[in-house]
Amino acid sequence: MKYTIIVCLGFFLLHFSASAQSKKLTIEDCVLKGKNILAPEKINQPQWIEGRTALVYSRKLNGVDCLIKYDWRKKPSQVSWTVGKLNQAFRRLKLDTLTKLPNVIRTGMDGFVFFNNNNLIKYDYRFDSITFHLTLDKKAENMDVAKYTTHVAYTVDNNLFVLMNNGTVQPISNDGNAGLVYGKSVHRDEYGISKGTYWSPKGNLLAYYRMDQSMVTDYPIMDLDEHPAKEHNIKYPMAGMKSHEVKVGVYNTATQKSVYLKINGPADQYLTNIAWSNDERNVFVVVLNRATDHLWLNEYDANTGDFVKTILEEQNNDWLEPTILIQFLPNNNNLFVWQSQRTGHNHLYLYDLNGTMQKELTHGDWDVINVSGISFGKNKIYFTGTTTSPLDQQICCVDATTGEMQQLTKDKGIHSLYLNEYTGDYLDVFSSYQIPKVVSIYDRRGKLRSNILLAENPLKDYKLGQTKIFNITAADNKTALYCRMILPPNFDSTKKYPCITYTYNGPHVQLVTNGWLNGADLWFHYLAQEGFIVFTVDGRGSGNRGFDFEKCIHRQLGTCEIADQMKGNDYLRHLKYIDTARLGIHGWSFGGFMTTSLMTRTPGKYKVGVCGGPVIDWSYYEVMYTERYMDTPAENPEGYKKSALTNYIDNLRGKLLMIHGTSDDVVVWQQSLMYIKKCVEKDKPIDYFVYPGHLHNVQGKDRIHLLQKITDYFKQNL
Amino acid sequence: MKYTIIVCLGFFLLHFSASAQSKKLTIEDCVLKGKNILAPEKINQPQWIEGRTALVYSRKLNGVDCLIKYDWRKKPSQVSWTVGKLNQAFRRLKLDTLTKLPNVIRTGMDGFVFFNNNNLIKYDYRFDSITFHLTLDKKAENMDVAKYTTHVAYTVDNNLFVLMNNGTVQPISNDGNAGLVYGKSVHRDEYGISKGTYWSPKGNLLAYYRMDQSMVTDYPIMDLDEHPAKEHNIKYPMAGMKSHEVKVGVYNTATQKSVYLKINGPADQYLTNIAWSNDERNVFVVVLNRATDHLWLNEYDANTGDFVKTILEEQNNDWLEPTILIQFLPNNNNLFVWQSQRTGHNHLYLYDLNGTMQKELTHGDWDVINVSGISFGKNKIYFTGTTTSPLDQQICCVDATTGEMQQLTKDKGIHSLYLNEYTGDYLDVFSSYQIPKVVSIYDRRGKLRSNILLAENPLKDYKLGQTKIFNITAADNKTALYCRMILPPNFDSTKKYPCITYTYNGPHVQLVTNGWLNGADLWFHYLAQEGFIVFTVDGRGSGNRGFDFEKCIHRQLGTCEIADQMKGNDYLRHLKYIDTARLGIHGWSFGGFMTTSLMTRTPGKYKVGVCGGPVIDWSYYEVMYTERYMDTPAENPEGYKKSALTNYIDNLRGKLLMIHGTSDDVVVWQQSLMYIKKCVEKDKPIDYFVYPGHLHNVQGKDRIHLLQKITDYFKQNL
Repeated sequence: MKYTIIVCLGFFLLHFSASAQSKKLTIEDCVLKGKNILAPEKINQPQWIEGRTALVYSRKLNGVDCLIKYDWRKKPSQVSWTVGKLNQAFRRLKLDTLTKLPNVIRTGMDGFVFFNNNNLIKYDYRFDSITFHLTLDKKAENMDVAKYTTHVAYTVDNNLFVLMNNGTVQPISNDGNAGLVYGKSVHRDEYGISKGTYWSPKGNLLAYYRMDQSMVTDYPIMDLDEHPAKEHNIKYPMAGMKSHEVKVGVYNTATQKSVYLKINGPADQYLTNIAWSNDERNVFVVVLNRATDHLWLNEYDANTGDFVKTILEEQNNDWLEPTILIQFLPNNNNLFVWQSQRTGHNHLYLYDLNGTMQKELTHGDWDVINVSGISFGKNKIYFTGTTTSPLDQQICCVDATTGEMQQLTKDKGIHSLYLNEYTGDYLDVFSSYQIPKVVSIYDRRGKLRSNILLAENPLKDYKLGQTKIFNITAADNKTALYCRMILPPNFDSTKKYPCITYTYNGPHVQLVTNGWLNGADLWFHYLAQEGFIVFTVDGRGSGNRGFDFEKCIHRQLGTCEIADQMKGNDYLRHLKYIDTARLGIHGWSFGGFMTTSLMTRTPGKYKVGVCGGPVIDWSYYEVMYTERYMDTPAENPEGYKKSALTNYIDNLRGKLLMIHGTSDDVVVWQQSLMYIKKCVEKDKPIDYFVYPGHLHNVQGKDRIHLLQKITDYFKQNL
Repeated sequence: MKYTIIVCLGFFLLHFSASAQSKKLTIEDCVLKGKNILAPEKINQPQWIEGRTALVYSRKLNGVDCLIKYDWRKKPSQVSWTVGKLNQAFRRLKLDTLTKLPNVIRTGMDGFVFFNNNNLIKYDYRFDSITFHLTLDKKAENMDVAKYTTHVAYTVDNNLFVLMNNGTVQPISNDGNAGLVYGKSVHRDEYGISKGTYWSPKGNLLAYYRMDQSMVTDYPIMDLDEHPAKEHNIKYPMAGMKSHEVKVGVYNTATQKSVYLKINGPADQYLTNIAWSNDERNVFVVVLNRATDHLWLNEYDANTGDFVKTILEEQNNDWLEPTILIQFLPNNNNLFVWQSQRTGHNHLYLYDLNGTMQKELTHGDWDVINVSGISFGKNKIYFTGTTTSPLDQQICCVDATTGEMQQLTKDKGIHSLYLNEYTGDYLDVFSSYQIPKVVSIYDRRGKLRSNILLAENPLKDYKLGQTKIFNITAADNKTALYCRMILPPNFDSTKKYPCITYTYNGPHVQLVTNGWLNGADLWFHYLAQEGFIVFTVDGRGSGNRGFDFEKCIHRQLGTCEIADQMKGNDYLRHLKYIDTARLGIHGWSFGGFMTTSLMTRTPGKYKVGVCGGPVIDWSYYEVMYTERYMDTPAENPEGYKKSALTNYIDNLRGKLLMIHGTSDDVVVWQQSLMYIKKCVEKDKPIDYFVYPGHLHNVQGKDRIHLLQKITDYFKQNL
């Protein structure tokens, strides 16, 4: 059935070669339009209605933002709501009206649940009326709405509260402060943690984090908008230094009491992957030691906090990085899916609560990327994986009963998957380098039922250069590394071009894919238009290639990454159309670390570098990320020394521009400032720029200034 | 007699044209040698022995630092001490020895008084022995030694103590802290204040400052050497905001009690010019209102603190800036010398304690620069003044009895003067653009008695370009402005050269003089050698031209300064050998303010600017300096708005590099950071650099990096 789409999408093909393409990109285009009108159209917030056959999503219809309920089984298949239509119900109840389409938190059988400012609203889509509303504290943040009960957990400053569905407020904590934080994400959002509250399945109990960070050192951030400037301190645990101490509490809305899980071990260990048993009796926590080489999946009694048992343990000589909650098979209190990288790739395993592995669900030289869900009745687990290539993400399912796996998609590119667990229908959101975006509904048999979006090529009027995808061999002489090269429009292979390498090469990030623009930023095409070849190679250590590919960075961040970037550099140098005297390098964050590493640890290989928000010395980066890869400075002094870029300043040749956001709370400003200080001490020329008030990345319209500055720097110096 | 010198100095003349001059300057030369071996040799710490005929000073003799006692009346005229010779006396007493020549605080009839670490030493030069020593608290700072008694006032942290000459310690305060400071300089060193203690003439009583700055806002300075970075707050009162509150105490070492002078007026007024009556009975203070347009010279009873009387008042529609203590005629408790700019120039007046002006001692279209002293018996006041030209400082004296004034020197250049009040001999330290340094002793009749230094031309081996001094007419179409232009070596008037204007144009500073190198920095000659013409004009508002010249800046900093710099720009544009498309501008501090002003308020007039430590908005600069010229932001909103450079960013054309020391506690870092922030918001290209850990000026060897950066910026962009 996929071929049907390809045929009907034929007009998208070869979109970079038609003669009508004459417009040139501007930097303003890249920044201001790159994520909207120059990006493929998409659908927003897709979700299947719980227990029903319909999909809810939002997109523009005739230029107006609409919330859409879509069911291919019905006629008419589509019902839509504009802000105006929704507001009729708000006006009837004299509630504050919406100013834009709400973000729907959940769609039940009887309505959409969403917030409008600090009001929780349930809108019954059947009768177009508001059937329920609650008003929260104006300062409420981190709202988390329980299924079924619709109780709302939220924080005010650093304390945690529940607004019960009867409108009463239950305070869970009252001693929160800057040093003691309740109900918020912990461990600096590492290990898959992005929130601090976890409702039980029936919505009666709330597991939550309590983080004591009073012992963590302060780092000062300067607020330049004050007169005079003021500093405010953030808690920033640096590698090897005191880390915060986390507990998991369970609050019972009936008894209005909390218990803390009785978790053994050092206070600075990691508590991740909080999950509930279906019957709400037990809470599961992955306990990971600070050394991140040993984890225990533990079960605790939700009422008493008592330790019940360790279900399974994993150890790894390099590191462990559990990020995905365990997921029970539907209506099953014993069998659950566990994800592990133990084979060198991320795969799914079926375990029972005694810790016995029942089945190796997936295996092979590829990675499970994202599990969407498990179909009821059939126990089929739907997920995406890099089954055809590390550059692709295909939709697959595996039968938990038989172990039979199927790859449901074939086209090269990136598929995202949204499973309707109730019907077995699934939504396929697809893009490839040729196909901007296709969103399709398939039924449980894999039959295409509807293309709800066929996005037009947003760049059809622009003259873009050719993108080439290929691979080279890593410095280990065996691993394939994927590369992307963007050529200038009107490329002439008999000429010589300057080339900018854009790099990251750090964990979790994959720059080259078979998705739209092959993963490239639109600005790279602007650079190509300005006469540069733009090259990227994802070296060992980077994302979506599996643990074996990643782990060479252990205890030596920078080392194998540099070696692989040098393979890219070698490759460029053998191309006749590259001006080898004019090779540039650019990257941000880990890519800033890499750029500075390459400018000084492989001197002369690049003439000009631009780095942003760079890690200069891993002992100034945070505990959670750094120690996973590097261990502590005391445990690995050689590794820290070898990667500390202040030790290579003498080697700096060529021109290097370093950039930092002054309010960066990820890679702190001190990192680049201390590098500049050392360059001055060593009388080494270097250039510097700051984005005052900006965080780790320069976002918003100020990004125009950033991209112009980088572009100008390469133009003037490369 | 001066002509004698000129003849014997004839070999210094024309030192820029001889054929042996072939060496080229380097930036390292300018920074590392510019203040020592490439600067004219000088004598250090000259002082006349109290009540005696001999001069004490230090200099190198045969390459060794020596302390020298010199008396032209004696044979041998010179006795000298090396560190080794002094240390023999230290060893005899088993005291810590000197590691370098001490700074002699005072030379009495019986010895040198100096500190070695925290030991106060009196070295009897007659017998080469140490006759007195006292040990201070290791944390002692701001040591102030009383005449005759040799009691030592000093601070530890923020408290004030006296170490009595019998070795006992008398604490004067005990409640000092960061917000309450005793015995240190106040009012941010404005109004001639550089210390916080003032011993009475006989050394029994101590007047001292007490500053309450608890109400002053904090400004955070980031300490990048900590791991992680820490901030420490300084008290920084910004224009129009709460200012500190100062009192004057008088401590009596006999009663061990303090009284505070009963000074009326608002707590945030300025208390300046603390002076004593000869009989120690009274203390004189100039009370200046915060608006700095009204001052009272008041007399207080030193024992009770009671107000005695106001001796004189001055008012000025623009501002008043009293900086010089009153000075009584020798052995006279009634007549004193008062300095005032009331005529538009700084002049001397003889007053009695009833406030009656007895004599206008000096007058005319020139300024008294510095009074050295008054000769005993003769009552002749010796001073330097700009009698021949604003570019010169000549030695003069005026007879306080007859009012007769004499100019004692004639040669164009800068004379410094050290009067021996006892004998009437005086030391003339002279330099001109031709004469590196001549130090001569004259007797009371003006007869040359000795040339104790005839410095060799330190640049005789270097090939430097010609320096031209000339004047142009200010934007008021009448005032002469002095200019300096340094031409490249091998200048060819048929060619065209890029030109960098170096500017300051703010109060107190005069860049162009008839002194050595005509006041130029050696680096300007480096720039000339690199092919730039380097130009400076001292516009209205700048120093040593008198109050009438300065006052056009009142309530409108930047306005007439820009107009005058534009006259300089016009002048450059009419010269055939200047490439008018390649005009650059550079300045630091007020000169950074001017550079940024000129790049944006006269857009297109300069192609490239480099500014350092710039004031961007006067409402972020400190109370004492800013309100004197600008009044408060509430009193002068238009003036602040007109001078605030964030309002002109839209006009920025060409290239501007802004530089700041991250620990700058004079012009705070926030000033440039907020400018960069606004440039980013307005999408204006600008370049930036920081010197981490540096204060208001980049000093030490890191200055090499700074000058290279500025040079490179002009080379690459101009």
